[in-house]
Amino acid sequence: MSDTELHARVHLQSETMARCLVTARQFKLQVDEPQSQGGRDEGPNPVEYLLAAQAGCLNYMCHWVARELKITIRSLQIDVDGHVDFARCMGLPTDKRAGFESLNAVLRVETDADDDTLEEWRRRVESRCPVGDNVANPTPLNVSVSATQPA
Amino acid sequence: MSDTELHARVHLQSETMARCLVTARQFKLQVDEPQSQGGRDEGPNPVEYLLAAQAGCLNYMCHWVARELKITIRSLQIDVDGHVDFARCMGLPTDKRAGFESLNAVLRVETDADDDTLEEWRRRVESRCPVGDNVANPTPLNVSVSATQPA
Repeated sequence: MSDTELHARVHLQSETMARCLVTARQFKLQVDEPQSQGGRDEGPNPVEYLLAAQAGCLNYMCHWVARELKITIRSLQIDVDGHVDFARCMGLPTDKRAGFESLNAVLRVETDADDDTLEEWRRRVESRCPVGDNVANPTPLNVSVSATQPA
Repeated sequence: MSDTELHARVHLQSETMARCLVTARQFKLQVDEPQSQGGRDEGPNPVEYLLAAQAGCLNYMCHWVARELKITIRSLQIDVDGHVDFARCMGLPTDKRAGFESLNAVLRVETDADDDTLEEWRRRVESRCPVGDNVANPTPLNVSVSATQPA
């Protein structure tokens, strides 16, 4: 494996439908749902984790590409949002897809770079962002089952 | 907006290339990188957040579909992993894509359901998972810039 490669993995321990604990290396992430969805509202829900992944990956790319283009970023904030209809996931009749229809990201940057340079910055950030690639383009998802009988 | 719909959003405050803080409603998520990547290793990195989102969403679906099929789940753990090469994101010459090549999820379930029922369970979980849909299928990603000049 070259030094640009990473094999990433997480492990999830289910508590209930709404709640689970995800372990990524030494880190623990509480996933939960609001009480209206049967949870205790003690953590973000899964689709919010997806938005956090997208925002965090854009942050890395914004700084990386700024170095390439010799742009100085004085400050950076990023907003990511999207609209999702859970009808399909719940098994209700719908013509909507299961996940987000689209994602919108706004890079709020304080910089004295000119408009053309900023457009090149935006273009490189968008086209080379790892999580953005997995959102924008198809990625094979293989779900398998390993079942054991109750003791 | 119907009661199956959600408009989700996160806000990110950048600290450095490696580190940022993401806010989702009342929750704060620390994103970081190992020291080898310029961070302080105080949180998962963005691609690990993506895996956590995928795992968490599968957890919800596993329990939801189990109810539909009247399967009793005694315990559930989920492993999600994937391989990514950051060469494209770093601007190095490569024929690899920017993000994960594929994602693998293993649903480790303790149940007395029979094999045919478990295959139907797996199929519904995979096909109706919101985050899984955004991974497996293209989702428009719109990245825009809002720039201000330094004071």
